Amino acid sequence: MEGLTVFTEMLAAEVLKTTPTKNKAALREAKRGILDYLASALAGREDAGVLKLLHAIEAEGGHPVAALIGQNKRANRRQAALVNGFMGHALDYDDVHSDVRGHPSSVILPALFALAAGREISGKQFLDTYIIGVEVMARLGQAFGTISYLQGWHNTSLLGGVSATFAGARLLGFTVAETQNAVGIAASQAAGLRVQFGTEMKPLHAGLAAQQAVQSIELTQQGFLGSAAALDTTSGYLAAYGGQEISEATRKALLENWGDSWRIATPGLWFKLFPFCSAALHGADAARQLAKLQLPVENIANIAIIFPPDGDAALIHKHPVTGEQGRFSIEYVVALALLGQAYTLEKFEAKAISDQAQQLMKVMSRKYDVHHLPDSQAIPKGRFTIIRIAMADGTVHTREVSVPIGSPGMPLTDAELEAKWQDAAPDKNNLEKVPATIRVLEKSSLNDLMALL
Amino acid sequence: MEGLTVFTEMLAAEVLKTTPTKNKAALREAKRGILDYLASALAGREDAGVLKLLHAIEAEGGHPVAALIGQNKRANRRQAALVNGFMGHALDYDDVHSDVRGHPSSVILPALFALAAGREISGKQFLDTYIIGVEVMARLGQAFGTISYLQGWHNTSLLGGVSATFAGARLLGFTVAETQNAVGIAASQAAGLRVQFGTEMKPLHAGLAAQQAVQSIELTQQGFLGSAAALDTTSGYLAAYGGQEISEATRKALLENWGDSWRIATPGLWFKLFPFCSAALHGADAARQLAKLQLPVENIANIAIIFPPDGDAALIHKHPVTGEQGRFSIEYVVALALLGQAYTLEKFEAKAISDQAQQLMKVMSRKYDVHHLPDSQAIPKGRFTIIRIAMADGTVHTREVSVPIGSPGMPLTDAELEAKWQDAAPDKNNLEKVPATIRVLEKSSLNDLMALL
Repeated sequence: MEGLTVFTEMLAAEVLKTTPTKNKAALREAKRGILDYLASALAGREDAGVLKLLHAIEAEGGHPVAALIGQNKRANRRQAALVNGFMGHALDYDDVHSDVRGHPSSVILPALFALAAGREISGKQFLDTYIIGVEVMARLGQAFGTISYLQGWHNTSLLGGVSATFAGARLLGFTVAETQNAVGIAASQAAGLRVQFGTEMKPLHAGLAAQQAVQSIELTQQGFLGSAAALDTTSGYLAAYGGQEISEATRKALLENWGDSWRIATPGLWFKLFPFCSAALHGADAARQLAKLQLPVENIANIAIIFPPDGDAALIHKHPVTGEQGRFSIEYVVALALLGQAYTLEKFEAKAISDQAQQLMKVMSRKYDVHHLPDSQAIPKGRFTIIRIAMADGTVHTREVSVPIGSPGMPLTDAELEAKWQDAAPDKNNLEKVPATIRVLEKSSLNDLMALL
Repeated sequence: MEGLTVFTEMLAAEVLKTTPTKNKAALREAKRGILDYLASALAGREDAGVLKLLHAIEAEGGHPVAALIGQNKRANRRQAALVNGFMGHALDYDDVHSDVRGHPSSVILPALFALAAGREISGKQFLDTYIIGVEVMARLGQAFGTISYLQGWHNTSLLGGVSATFAGARLLGFTVAETQNAVGIAASQAAGLRVQFGTEMKPLHAGLAAQQAVQSIELTQQGFLGSAAALDTTSGYLAAYGGQEISEATRKALLENWGDSWRIATPGLWFKLFPFCSAALHGADAARQLAKLQLPVENIANIAIIFPPDGDAALIHKHPVTGEQGRFSIEYVVALALLGQAYTLEKFEAKAISDQAQQLMKVMSRKYDVHHLPDSQAIPKGRFTIIRIAMADGTVHTREVSVPIGSPGMPLTDAELEAKWQDAAPDKNNLEKVPATIRVLEKSSLNDLMALL
């Protein structure tokens, strides 16, 4: 980096020159990330929002060059990034990264798939690019800290478009100058408000960010000129969204120890086993432990669900009517477990919740504990959920979870991840082919995988 | 507004119910605004960036339903909004509004033209809608004050997408709920960084904002659901970009005296007579006054150009080589005037600057005066430019301008505005037809005008 003074240029230089697939842990997690994204997108393929987006892009028209996952349709690159990004995040079933405070793969992978369509890209190049995209997004997340989130933005899109653009530039072999230019175009489109949580716009943020990355790359290919220093200066991206206090020192920290380890593996992606809001995953694990006791539900007097203050902010439905609302309801998630019912996709569709579950939800209440100290590996930091069941005879059963299954402190096994894929995949012919192709992706062409989408 | 508690809903209700064309001053300025936008866009039709955008949308494909102004081509609505927005602002020749601190018409009109394509819209409905779009944008600009600008954003796009979406909802007869939804989708895409000033991205901000408005309207038409309260709450648009201090009181002020007068007329749009950065317009007027003295340029010893501190921040070229760079050079603008040369479009193209102008620029220097007090009607507030010419014989000639021609304190006559149109229009058959059609637009169909674009 000697001699370079523009931070945007320094970061672009790192992004273009490193090959993280040399790192075995990063390579393994990248493959798992691709399978998890495809499972999440396929699980969301019939979400109501997908159909609306398909109508919208049909009205627009466009050259059909890039696949819409699970739709047996193609669209132009920009549209494919939009729809595939939405689908990945539609059910809140896709991966999370604690440094990002958001969802990396549903932005980065749809952008990369769209840009790769119809081109010869090696599996290794694709994997390197994806790992680097997650790296940039996690480092940007660390740079912003909680500032951007508290100010009102959704990190998935705020960081995702810029990160996916860095990755896209690397995928297509851009020069450093072209990369700076594309990132500048993307930085000038960074957006996405948290006020959208609980609406279809939340998952669309992933699609919009992926779309911005594709458009920024394509405009750069046409020679369209933007700022080469969009991550620098007091009127740039970091200063505008992170506050003017984002200093030169913070920028340098973004580059420190680049390549020593990769954030896709350390701390790692958090894969979800169940298709509902991550804020309910702790409670789901606690409830499933309690379910093993096979308590007769008719003898339950009451159930307390205890969070740290605001730990349930994302769980906006206390009295859900449909399975879709149940994605944001700890009550529904706990009820299903105690009734011995598995968290299958169809349990979270827009259909009425069973009377049995409604009855059980009536004895539940949420409580908050300011003083309780969770596990030091808790994710997010300081989070816990305690479920306390009081039986009619006075017996009390309690379970607490701070580190849910699938999070870096308790990672999914490869078998669990493949089971998630198998639950979601519509084409039973591909049940084995897709995981098998991903397993050797670094030795093959990306087209071997894209042909199966 | 009684009974309503959601600000986004209250603003949507006002937007949908008022008919500002009843106000004669507003109606007149709206017609002038349309002619000025068309002149600015046609003047920019051969800008290098336009060709790059045309290549990009050709690669995307799309149903050709909406006209690209001056291109004899059509594209889908989203693409037309993008290109027509860029073209309007390409030369920095389009209107400015002091409350907006940016360019309203190059966002609002391209979005409205794109949405109107192929539909039956009355001229009156179009004019009402445009006036309301400018009204919302100016009021949002007042709400943000200087906060968003200082933090790093470009108001043209930051406010433009949301304002054009309010207008688009009105144009197509949306309900209040649909309007809230569309505005929510647009608010979650608001962006555009000032770091782009001096690049092709600056005018593209206008195009991107117009594109966001079209996409937000079209997604709403497909039933896609976003937040209905995006201008409310601490995680909404006003709080995120304007700081959490944007309070309930500020929101109420946004609605105060709605319809008493219209900001498109009071204070009014600032139309530019010349195709260069508005920061050079004061100096241009001062130089043209001095040119009337017909000073022999070979006898000029030196020229001081005096601004308030930072008053020349946008004028980034002190030593321009091409006419295109000269758009951001007070030296070039002053040189042309003193050489008796008119500010025609071709003087600001990407061609070498004459030796004569280069010679004259060598005797110029910029100075700053902290203490000087400008005219109270100065635009922007506190701005002035003084040109002081010292002749070889010791004589000194000085002129000062705070209120440039075209700004609300010194508005263009209709004849001057039509001359701007005639200079820009490529099709000499339309020289008369377009202004004549606009003159009676409130009594005719918008298609009468659109057929001429």
